[in-house]
Amino acid sequence: MKETEVVAGKRRRPGGRAAKVTEAVHRAVLEAVLEVGVEKVSIPDISRRSGVRDSTIYRRWVTRENLVLDVLLTGSGRTLAVPDTGALRDDLVAFATALDVYLKSAIGQGLLRVFASIADTPEIAESRNTFWQERFKSVAVIIDRASERSEIAADVDARAAIELLIAPIHFRHLLSRQPCDREFIDSLVSAVIGYCGTASCDEKRF
Amino acid sequence: MKETEVVAGKRRRPGGRAAKVTEAVHRAVLEAVLEVGVEKVSIPDISRRSGVRDSTIYRRWVTRENLVLDVLLTGSGRTLAVPDTGALRDDLVAFATALDVYLKSAIGQGLLRVFASIADTPEIAESRNTFWQERFKSVAVIIDRASERSEIAADVDARAAIELLIAPIHFRHLLSRQPCDREFIDSLVSAVIGYCGTASCDEKRF
Repeated sequence: MKETEVVAGKRRRPGGRAAKVTEAVHRAVLEAVLEVGVEKVSIPDISRRSGVRDSTIYRRWVTRENLVLDVLLTGSGRTLAVPDTGALRDDLVAFATALDVYLKSAIGQGLLRVFASIADTPEIAESRNTFWQERFKSVAVIIDRASERSEIAADVDARAAIELLIAPIHFRHLLSRQPCDREFIDSLVSAVIGYCGTASCDEKRF
Repeated sequence: MKETEVVAGKRRRPGGRAAKVTEAVHRAVLEAVLEVGVEKVSIPDISRRSGVRDSTIYRRWVTRENLVLDVLLTGSGRTLAVPDTGALRDDLVAFATALDVYLKSAIGQGLLRVFASIADTPEIAESRNTFWQERFKSVAVIIDRASERSEIAADVDARAAIELLIAPIHFRHLLSRQPCDREFIDSLVSAVIGYCGTASCDEKRF
């Protein structure tokens, strides 16, 4: 997005300029990540691509790691709303389906490849950890709500349940490249529900 | 491995030369995959690296896709023996642990990154499919044996169970970069056993 486009945006409201700066910078980062890879994203380059002064970017995000992290988090958080249908199975199916759609998109594919391929510096490792912690925390709400509704036990490890749901979807997109069809998602959701229902007792069963 | 090393190998036995050619070619392919990436592996390059004539390589493997596939299959098949302890939980823990160790190794890391990053041509897609089909088939034996011992029901989807086991391990290695410690593997194995035990009835339970 060029500065002219930002300035010429039609909707004007209090706080509109800050929102437009954010939007322009985020778009520039995503573009740069896809084009040159996350290791080569730099604040001067983002300034050029977005038409936002680098002093503004430094003041707001401080480091390039913070900036990239913010964009990754916002990007997937924006696309991947956490459903609240009132039923565990429906929530899990809706989330898994949305994740599959996201990972098929150009941005999703790009971020997935970047995430899989980069060698971690301590800063990137920290951003990566924060990213997954945030993601797991936000999606774990699905499990917490089901447990509040007494659909499942109160002591289910929500993070483990979500990992069990999302790992096979990422596995198919990155490694086996098999489609995540409805049958697969249904079966996966059944497995996760089974885990939530049996997590505290399966040691005794086998 | 250089030709001199192949020729100077100490152990001589019938079939020894063919085995040495295989070994030299396989090493060269792994080296090339790690160094230049799977898309750039070529038979002439493998010939140079291994000291084995390209006519020999063409006669034996016909195409570079076959060659790379053979090496990937052999490499992981060799490292990842399928355990047979007589108990489902022990088999799953042993396999998951071995997979984690393999994915931590230089070759495992290299193949994982290559597998995750390459864009599929129709030929690579076919090799990829064959690779995962073979892997799933060989590891699914763990589930089949447990079902023969009546540890679990006979109608468990063995492939789905194995995918549920291996996907989170790959997810951690590629994406979240969290360690696969014993507690994680135990919890994952419990989830898979739960899936095997409840796969045919959880639709009714929820």
